[in-house]
Amino acid sequence: MTTQYIVEIFGTGFFAISGALAATDKSKPDWFGVTFIGFITAIGGGSVRDILLGSYPLAWVRDVNFMYSIIAAIIIASVFFKTLIKLRRTFFLFDTLGIAMFTILGTEKALGHQIHPLIAAIMGMFSAVMGGVLRDVLTNEIPVIFKKEVYATACLAGALFYIGLDVFLNNRTVNILSSMILIFIIRIVAIKYNLSLPKFRKEEEV
Amino acid sequence: MTTQYIVEIFGTGFFAISGALAATDKSKPDWFGVTFIGFITAIGGGSVRDILLGSYPLAWVRDVNFMYSIIAAIIIASVFFKTLIKLRRTFFLFDTLGIAMFTILGTEKALGHQIHPLIAAIMGMFSAVMGGVLRDVLTNEIPVIFKKEVYATACLAGALFYIGLDVFLNNRTVNILSSMILIFIIRIVAIKYNLSLPKFRKEEEV
Amino acid sequence: MTTQYIVEIFGTGFFAISGALAATDKSKPDWFGVTFIGFITAIGGGSVRDILLGSYPLAWVRDVNFMYSIIAAIIIASVFFKTLIKLRRTFFLFDTLGIAMFTILGTEKALGHQIHPLIAAIMGMFSAVMGGVLRDVLTNEIPVIFKKEVYATACLAGALFYIGLDVFLNNRTVNILSSMILIFIIRIVAIKYNLSLPKFRKEEEV
Repeated sequence: MTTQYIVEIFGTGFFAISGALAATDKSKPDWFGVTFIGFITAIGGGSVRDILLGSYPLAWVRDVNFMYSIIAAIIIASVFFKTLIKLRRTFFLFDTLGIAMFTILGTEKALGHQIHPLIAAIMGMFSAVMGGVLRDVLTNEIPVIFKKEVYATACLAGALFYIGLDVFLNNRTVNILSSMILIFIIRIVAIKYNLSLPKFRKEEEV
Repeated sequence: MTTQYIVEIFGTGFFAISGALAATDKSKPDWFGVTFIGFITAIGGGSVRDILLGSYPLAWVRDVNFMYSIIAAIIIASVFFKTLIKLRRTFFLFDTLGIAMFTILGTEKALGHQIHPLIAAIMGMFSAVMGGVLRDVLTNEIPVIFKKEVYATACLAGALFYIGLDVFLNNRTVNILSSMILIFIIRIVAIKYNLSLPKFRKEEEV
Repeated sequence: MTTQYIVEIFGTGFFAISGALAATDKSKPDWFGVTFIGFITAIGGGSVRDILLGSYPLAWVRDVNFMYSIIAAIIIASVFFKTLIKLRRTFFLFDTLGIAMFTILGTEKALGHQIHPLIAAIMGMFSAVMGGVLRDVLTNEIPVIFKKEVYATACLAGALFYIGLDVFLNNRTVNILSSMILIFIIRIVAIKYNLSLPKFRKEEEV
């Protein structure tokens, strides 16, 4: 059991809590619905990446610990529901860390498939955001990546930064952590100062 | 041509009729739209399971008889449209049987891929419900599994029951049939007594 | 670099422009959103086909030139936005040509996987329409294939025609071009005379 494995298992559970809380925001799904949505949020991004890469077996299919982590996460989300809702701000920090981690580990995995670094960066971003996209599609919402401030863009920037570092610096831990920190900072700064990417069409063109 | 093969071909056609009728419930799609939705409903669940397992080739890609069954089903749905709508209650029984069958055969297939039984049960449930989920996503509806009474839950319970039986009892036919009957009974009882799973959030928390 | 490769790279960029323009029709997404939607529109159809066939690696994952073409396309769409919107009619002709090409090349590719010609024709149609379907699902719209006049049907007809030709005629270029022309003509005639497929249910049944 490497550190990375433990972090991945916990990260998956964390994503499931995040998905479950998001699911209860607008509707009042039953236990099955919440578990299903938490599950899709947690494993969706990595699954999309691995299916696009043709990288089988998928991690959660091969290793049941991911599922145990998700089930534990849903139970925790239920028991500590009020507390978690109150701790949204703290929770948000963890969520951002989780997204940063999924992006960089996903990019690294994709690079192992001998593909162009730009494609690997896109795969890394997909690892982090596609779970949320699937969740939003299933619950009939406009995906959050089209609305949230520089959400997926931060992931893509971090993934590209990691790829750049990877060329020059042979220290995996430093590369991973500094790229994660970059994603974290971009996201936090964007939220704090309410930054967003420019619109594709200028106002007067509308 | 085994019994199972014949049952699978007919079951696929049955799912296509079910999908086509659901598609005409709210909108008035043209022939192409109805066929497309019937097709997705019929092959969607098995395709999602096989893509997640990396189990190629997909049954309907390899064997054109599944497609013939779907085409025949759409024609039948058109010719006997009024009758089928009137027979909704009878139809519902067949639909429930079909879901039960897809779940158990899907679970069995997944078990053959040397994966953890819990994951195999989830794959079995996916086989039965993911066609409907894709149909609902394509027609911009909230997927029925988030609304319908213990729909997917019954499938999951039956799949887990089958896996338990499989450990102790070496009679495939008995195991399959009794698990299918369990799904059937849970679903019928839930509908009759209007049962549903508890909400994830208690009312006072809203 | 064969002619076909160049045409495919340009066709992909063209699909990305088409997707980007469609994305800006109803909402005002930012740069990331437009690029993401253009990308999904461009590579979605071929990716769905290849994932269903189990045909790895996907073209855009293996060959970064598809991504460069998409990025260039989004920049062109931004710089010449007003012009492109004005040229909608001309643009529509190119779009129809692109769909025709994706259909026939997709059908040909699927035939190479030793599958039944009917399934290959469906795969060809998927290559052309699934990118748009994914785009519409992501932006929470009813997919255009359920609304637009004989859109996917034209693709399917052309794919079946190509398969028929392929049996009798050994001239690949003639087969491809004449099938593309058939799709083009069906689509243009349907638009001009406002043709549509018959509804599945007759009016008096509603």
